[in-house]
Amino acid sequence: MTGNTVGPAGLRVRSAVRDLLGAPECAPHRRAGVVGVAISGGADSLALADAAAYCCARLGMATRGLVVDHRMQDGSAATAAWAAETARSLGVAETRVLPVDVHGAGGPEAAARQARYAALRAAMPEDGALVLLGHTRDDQAETVLLGLGRGSGPRSIAGMRPLDPPWARPLLDLPRSDTQLACAELGVRPWHDPHNADPRFTRSRLRTEVFPLLEDVLQDGVAGALARTAAQLREDLVVLDELAGDLYAKARVPGHGDPGTGDVADGLDAETLGTARAALRRRAIRHWLHAAGARDLSDGHLRSVDALVSAWRGQGGVWLPGNLVASRSHGTLRVQHFVSGSVTDRQQEPD
Amino acid sequence: MTGNTVGPAGLRVRSAVRDLLGAPECAPHRRAGVVGVAISGGADSLALADAAAYCCARLGMATRGLVVDHRMQDGSAATAAWAAETARSLGVAETRVLPVDVHGAGGPEAAARQARYAALRAAMPEDGALVLLGHTRDDQAETVLLGLGRGSGPRSIAGMRPLDPPWARPLLDLPRSDTQLACAELGVRPWHDPHNADPRFTRSRLRTEVFPLLEDVLQDGVAGALARTAAQLREDLVVLDELAGDLYAKARVPGHGDPGTGDVADGLDAETLGTARAALRRRAIRHWLHAAGARDLSDGHLRSVDALVSAWRGQGGVWLPGNLVASRSHGTLRVQHFVSGSVTDRQQEPD
Repeated sequence: MTGNTVGPAGLRVRSAVRDLLGAPECAPHRRAGVVGVAISGGADSLALADAAAYCCARLGMATRGLVVDHRMQDGSAATAAWAAETARSLGVAETRVLPVDVHGAGGPEAAARQARYAALRAAMPEDGALVLLGHTRDDQAETVLLGLGRGSGPRSIAGMRPLDPPWARPLLDLPRSDTQLACAELGVRPWHDPHNADPRFTRSRLRTEVFPLLEDVLQDGVAGALARTAAQLREDLVVLDELAGDLYAKARVPGHGDPGTGDVADGLDAETLGTARAALRRRAIRHWLHAAGARDLSDGHLRSVDALVSAWRGQGGVWLPGNLVASRSHGTLRVQHFVSGSVTDRQQEPD
Repeated sequence: MTGNTVGPAGLRVRSAVRDLLGAPECAPHRRAGVVGVAISGGADSLALADAAAYCCARLGMATRGLVVDHRMQDGSAATAAWAAETARSLGVAETRVLPVDVHGAGGPEAAARQARYAALRAAMPEDGALVLLGHTRDDQAETVLLGLGRGSGPRSIAGMRPLDPPWARPLLDLPRSDTQLACAELGVRPWHDPHNADPRFTRSRLRTEVFPLLEDVLQDGVAGALARTAAQLREDLVVLDELAGDLYAKARVPGHGDPGTGDVADGLDAETLGTARAALRRRAIRHWLHAAGARDLSDGHLRSVDALVSAWRGQGGVWLPGNLVASRSHGTLRVQHFVSGSVTDRQQEPD
């Protein structure tokens, strides 16, 4: 059992963790009997470690602290060992260091994230077990702003979900300052990642340059405002995705995925799609293309495929990442592997 | 007829105006025979004036240039007269100056906007006549960012609509730089509003400080990214508003607005609302409260009223701006004028 002395901020962190772990939708995850806690040694994760130890003890669950050592900086092993020791002192008795190799495409931030999440997953083999992540409202605001910069639509600015198994983010409604205060109350001194102030990293620049300026120009409370809008967007997306799922099921033309047709997935009936609103049509098409193996679809790709329905003038196939081609013939949208010459702008198909 | 010599940028502006005015959904507005053009003397509006004169002549319509003199700065009358003369030289022969008085709540920007829009409306009494506004993609991006700062949900970041009668914004997909280039091609020197560089004004600071920093941190193309996301949000909102309208119609309990009940609008059936998703429930409730005369409802207000459905534990009424109270009794949501004492946290109602 843990008995750290906490003040008001620590109580807010504990209460956030208790609310999430105790929620009805967490029941299947509670049955795993153990909860992972991702620990970097920063204020967010140490405040989370205290709260997790406290709440899990009361729920009759074990906690497992997970410290990922990215091995990207000198002395990272020592930092990881220190973070693990601190987590143990906060009541997360079983805390492990997980060393990872970071390499891969998409820049150092993306590669480190990918390696981290893979290691955390692997460390929690128990069926339904969650891993608590210390993302705060400020992280959520940064995510929303990054999504805005990408311009890839509502989904990219809807931010992170509180419960997205195996990930759980109980602190999404709390300001980062609460976790810093909680650490002060607990008498632990969090580690400051030098990357957090490194201007080569986009998130760091959002944190240290963009948000302070936005707070000044747009008045206080920008992080909360972004998080509120993101929460509403997530609720909207639930409705839209459900309706788009219905539309997809209605428009599906089975049989096109069979060997011999050259198609890599079922077809979609253009007339059925044509009766729906643009927002649902585009979502149904994205769902269809994802199922066929397309990845990294941009707004432009989806609009080009949608034009096979909404602006049909006998145009040819649309090339898509993943080396696929979407085209229309005999009133059905089809998706096939790209074969040189299969994409032409003027390929007239009877319809 | 107009015969200004334009280059590539001017052609892009003309093509944007032609696309909007020639669109099927503009047919009822073309029948008005005349199109208003709001002219400030800045690059956006002068490029728009040329394009409007050119396109309307070809559509057999007249143009009416409208220069609002806000009379907030010394020499504003002379600037307005110059802008009107420049618009005439660009082919908008009938151009008027509309002097307005700016006063009212909400700061100088809001008051000026209100006075300007009222004057523009009044100058176009013809049934269905549109007023073209020169907002560009950069203005759209500023609007989205302002909305994000307010945190009042998807609607506030969906930006301005291209067609929102009597307003029409044909340049929403063009960068501001195109209008500046078009003016250079036309040989006109646009007026630079000193307010555009005045750091007391929020929009000016977004333009001169926030966007350059965002472009630097998030890479190029932030304005386009925001505009793309806003366009998708507008399509999403069409679907969600339609569904919420259906839910409202289904949940409405007529008779509650009758004299003697104390209610200022029909009731809403809590059970019907309870079967719907949060995003639709909240929209139906907002629609209902707006119809009852409530204004400036925040996300918090709507969530409190929604809790009468989604987290009903016999709680009391919820106070709302406009001096209204929403409460639940006998399974029906009601809205009444606030009377001292009618809002209590523990008012147990049989249900």
